[in-house]
Amino acid sequence: MSEYSIGLDLGGTNLRAAAIDKTGKMLDKVSGRTQYSEGREAIVHDMVEAISVLRDRFGKEHLSGIGIGVPGFISMKEGVIKNCANIASLENFPIRDEIGRRLETTVILENDANAAALGEKWIGAGRDVDDLVMLTLGTGIGGGIISGGKVLRGFSGMAGELGHITAVPYGNPCGCGNCGCVEKHASATAIVAMGRMLGLGKDITSLDVFNMAVAGNPKAQMVFVSMGEAIGIVLAMLVNAFNFPLYLIAGGVIAGWDLFYPPMIAETRKRSFTYRITETRVEKAQLGNEAGLYGAAYLPWCEI
Amino acid sequence: MSEYSIGLDLGGTNLRAAAIDKTGKMLDKVSGRTQYSEGREAIVHDMVEAISVLRDRFGKEHLSGIGIGVPGFISMKEGVIKNCANIASLENFPIRDEIGRRLETTVILENDANAAALGEKWIGAGRDVDDLVMLTLGTGIGGGIISGGKVLRGFSGMAGELGHITAVPYGNPCGCGNCGCVEKHASATAIVAMGRMLGLGKDITSLDVFNMAVAGNPKAQMVFVSMGEAIGIVLAMLVNAFNFPLYLIAGGVIAGWDLFYPPMIAETRKRSFTYRITETRVEKAQLGNEAGLYGAAYLPWCEI
Repeated sequence: MSEYSIGLDLGGTNLRAAAIDKTGKMLDKVSGRTQYSEGREAIVHDMVEAISVLRDRFGKEHLSGIGIGVPGFISMKEGVIKNCANIASLENFPIRDEIGRRLETTVILENDANAAALGEKWIGAGRDVDDLVMLTLGTGIGGGIISGGKVLRGFSGMAGELGHITAVPYGNPCGCGNCGCVEKHASATAIVAMGRMLGLGKDITSLDVFNMAVAGNPKAQMVFVSMGEAIGIVLAMLVNAFNFPLYLIAGGVIAGWDLFYPPMIAETRKRSFTYRITETRVEKAQLGNEAGLYGAAYLPWCEI
Repeated sequence: MSEYSIGLDLGGTNLRAAAIDKTGKMLDKVSGRTQYSEGREAIVHDMVEAISVLRDRFGKEHLSGIGIGVPGFISMKEGVIKNCANIASLENFPIRDEIGRRLETTVILENDANAAALGEKWIGAGRDVDDLVMLTLGTGIGGGIISGGKVLRGFSGMAGELGHITAVPYGNPCGCGNCGCVEKHASATAIVAMGRMLGLGKDITSLDVFNMAVAGNPKAQMVFVSMGEAIGIVLAMLVNAFNFPLYLIAGGVIAGWDLFYPPMIAETRKRSFTYRITETRVEKAQLGNEAGLYGAAYLPWCEI
């Protein structure tokens, strides 16, 4: 039995945990049973349960550590989620210490988008580089920055909040207090909102808009042009600031890659001299929604 | 005689070099004699001359190394300035190797704004932190990022090109090919351009606009509001991306700090949740135009 670690990803709809060995092989995976609407105690119990099941199965003696990816702005010092729109019951709760207490061990807490970026760096699209930036387009937009092979956290664990970078200075209002955050112009939610604005249907999903665009609907195609341009503006900023070799786009929305890539990269090219004269790569992520699970499991190894 | 290093700063109008010891004490400083318009050979000769004078004075045996700060986009691998609007004759010239050859030693090349940020980190406004971002507002806007006590360079040495971050998506055109670069909305040059647009005078300088604003001219005050907002938008992005503890504003324009700070910080506050809930500091740089000289001299020590 070789060394392994346990990663847990508190995703948008359910939680998953996996035991993964040092080569990146997933030994086993379990899913939580709780609806997040059942409240904090149910969620925390479910998290502890999922980790315990895997730890019992593979043994404490080979366990390198436990990493947990959670949504929201995280204060690393306190181990607390400061702002979590998706699971409000977890806000301002000392989740790291509480889970550690129940498991009688320490756990490493990380923002889910950071964990996903780390997963891609470990065994995904970024495995050949040490520095990358990842944007995950979902309900919102999550950002993760890997610098020198590690998560760039900043002084309070909040680095990489790229979804709230201003793409459109007087654009759509955002719950964060700003207007024009890129996640209000390029997430799946934004795609739906733009589709509705253009009269594509009242109850459409982002997949509907995608299907209409593929079928040749010019309004649906415009939606992807608009979201591509918003992402491109932010990518240009990131390329100018970081000059990293690789920028990854992740999330279900990358199904529309062929639709939004041309306007996105045209914007990046226009707005970044650095992009134009270097071999900067902008690519799709490869691990899908497993990225966060892999990244969480990798945390104990990259923190050493 | 203690250890010292030599820093050279190829500034906007003339070059300066200094011998500085490890405690940050400036032992001696010399200025170049050349007009940049005299062309490349004259500039390179002047650079080598300034360094040689100091090296002869303080001796080779205690010299830790030589650092050189130059304007423009630099390819670190080649040691070449790729794009240098101010001193066109240096573009695509292997300046690092040529100076090294003439001095018969290796030299470290760095972008001038990066060097200035490093100087502030070493013995200026950033001496109590390891991570900071600096914006230098001059003819253009230079950016420097210090991460973990070192210059963040990116994979080809072009990280920190913050002057070309888009602050106003359909704003003023920039020589870099973009429109709305923050340096076209918040540099000294932009202040002059805005002042002219508002009819403040055909031959005004940024100092004139500043003096008019201080004297209560509402149009001149609007110029500083506008440039403050542009900087604030970019600061918010940087805070969201990096979550570093300190952001420094440098350059002659900081004379107008009281005029542009309120709109700048209001914009940052609005556009960055991270700024609002953390102890993020936005402050003036302290070393003036000596920062680049100190930073260049520090290069040999922080690269080890």
